[in-house]
Amino acid sequence: MKKNSPIGVFDSGVGGLTVAKEIKRLLPNESIIYFGDTEHLPYGDKSKETITKYSVKITRFLAKCKCKAIVVACNTATSNSIDEIKTAAGKIPVIDVISPVAKKVAFELHQKVGLIATKATVESHAYKKSIKKLNKHIKVVELATPLLVPIIEEGFRNTPVSKSAIDTYLSYKKFEDIDSIILGCTHYPLIQKEIEIAFKGKVKVVNSPLIVVNELIQRLENENLLADTAEPEYRFYLSDYTDNFISLARSFFGKSISLEKKSL
Amino acid sequence: MKKNSPIGVFDSGVGGLTVAKEIKRLLPNESIIYFGDTEHLPYGDKSKETITKYSVKITRFLAKCKCKAIVVACNTATSNSIDEIKTAAGKIPVIDVISPVAKKVAFELHQKVGLIATKATVESHAYKKSIKKLNKHIKVVELATPLLVPIIEEGFRNTPVSKSAIDTYLSYKKFEDIDSIILGCTHYPLIQKEIEIAFKGKVKVVNSPLIVVNELIQRLENENLLADTAEPEYRFYLSDYTDNFISLARSFFGKSISLEKKSL
Repeated sequence: MKKNSPIGVFDSGVGGLTVAKEIKRLLPNESIIYFGDTEHLPYGDKSKETITKYSVKITRFLAKCKCKAIVVACNTATSNSIDEIKTAAGKIPVIDVISPVAKKVAFELHQKVGLIATKATVESHAYKKSIKKLNKHIKVVELATPLLVPIIEEGFRNTPVSKSAIDTYLSYKKFEDIDSIILGCTHYPLIQKEIEIAFKGKVKVVNSPLIVVNELIQRLENENLLADTAEPEYRFYLSDYTDNFISLARSFFGKSISLEKKSL
Repeated sequence: MKKNSPIGVFDSGVGGLTVAKEIKRLLPNESIIYFGDTEHLPYGDKSKETITKYSVKITRFLAKCKCKAIVVACNTATSNSIDEIKTAAGKIPVIDVISPVAKKVAFELHQKVGLIATKATVESHAYKKSIKKLNKHIKVVELATPLLVPIIEEGFRNTPVSKSAIDTYLSYKKFEDIDSIILGCTHYPLIQKEIEIAFKGKVKVVNSPLIVVNELIQRLENENLLADTAEPEYRFYLSDYTDNFISLARSFFGKSISLEKKSL
């Protein structure tokens, strides 16, 4: 692996862009290859077997692109298929979006933590298991919120639709006395402000993209793999073109990004 | 083809069940094989190429199951891939969900018709073209309403979420003086009452499932293929299990239906 090789990032759609954007902000020298599996979106209500099949194919593609690290910027893929992804990645370091967040939550002062995520992530109990393993005293309350991904993918942020869906989900009885909430889907930081408002500022929202990218930095430092190029490249592969992806990727990375359709 | 062979019906998810339910009601002797491509749901924001690939695979599967007729109970598949589906079906009669509705609308007393559908259906202009071909005086106003399928698939019917999404979509300026509306997606009859309420009963909702099944009856009669068995069977194949599909299929067809997972 070479220092100036790209970092591979993947997700089912636009969600992983919240992580890619944070990589760009904190690591401006790094090149990124992003794979958005928009043909098979959303992953959140698919079976483990199906999620694993797609995730492994994407990992192999990113490995072929000579990525020096792979960020699984998708909670559903992480919670269902991380072992298979690591096997497919071989010697390439793999950073997932759950374990760094679980570490952070487990060792800071949280008592009762809420988690919202896709069905597949919640059903895997990946966050709960990871947090409990590190600190058994924390209470973790999980809720599947499957409508939030399509609301974001369809551009309904900051509308009565997002508000009523968020209000409905967050009025979940068991969330009454949580002190913090994990956005267990990389799409959700795109509606973070609306979530904070729904909780009237009383619940701390865990900043997952920042935590994940800090983990990535540490891994690259450890392996002496931080880039020193001054001209990073951003390449985006989509399994199917969607307007929402293209406009969001451009708003985060500029209009001149390279976009290519690539079937799995 | 034999009289008591099953009728094949397919859709990306639960939407086609509104058509299958109408087949069961009007043709109680008929056996049905339903294919729900829940692994690749939703079709509505995928490319023509992708939609055609899946639709053709499903058609070949239904042909192998010796179906005597195939109902494409998906507007997106109809509007993007009907020619390829017919080729794949060979001699088996294919009934789509657009042309019978277009015929009905074109020859009844409509002046300005609204259409709500998925992105892919709207972008194909299949309804508009079919209606205009038969009656060029009718005005057809089209609107893509992509959030309605996930709202229905996630069980948010009759909630503030469906209400705000429906209100937002139907307040579309060009819908102001329509006299009737086509629900251009087989999912939408599941929220027909809410749509009628949003229009305060002033807009006639076209009953697409009924029209489509009447077309099917006519085709089967013409070819002397109406079943005479008293023990119809209902078989459901899903490319991925989803709770919503299973519970809706059971509510329409009873708890003892046969359900099987089948990859494309």
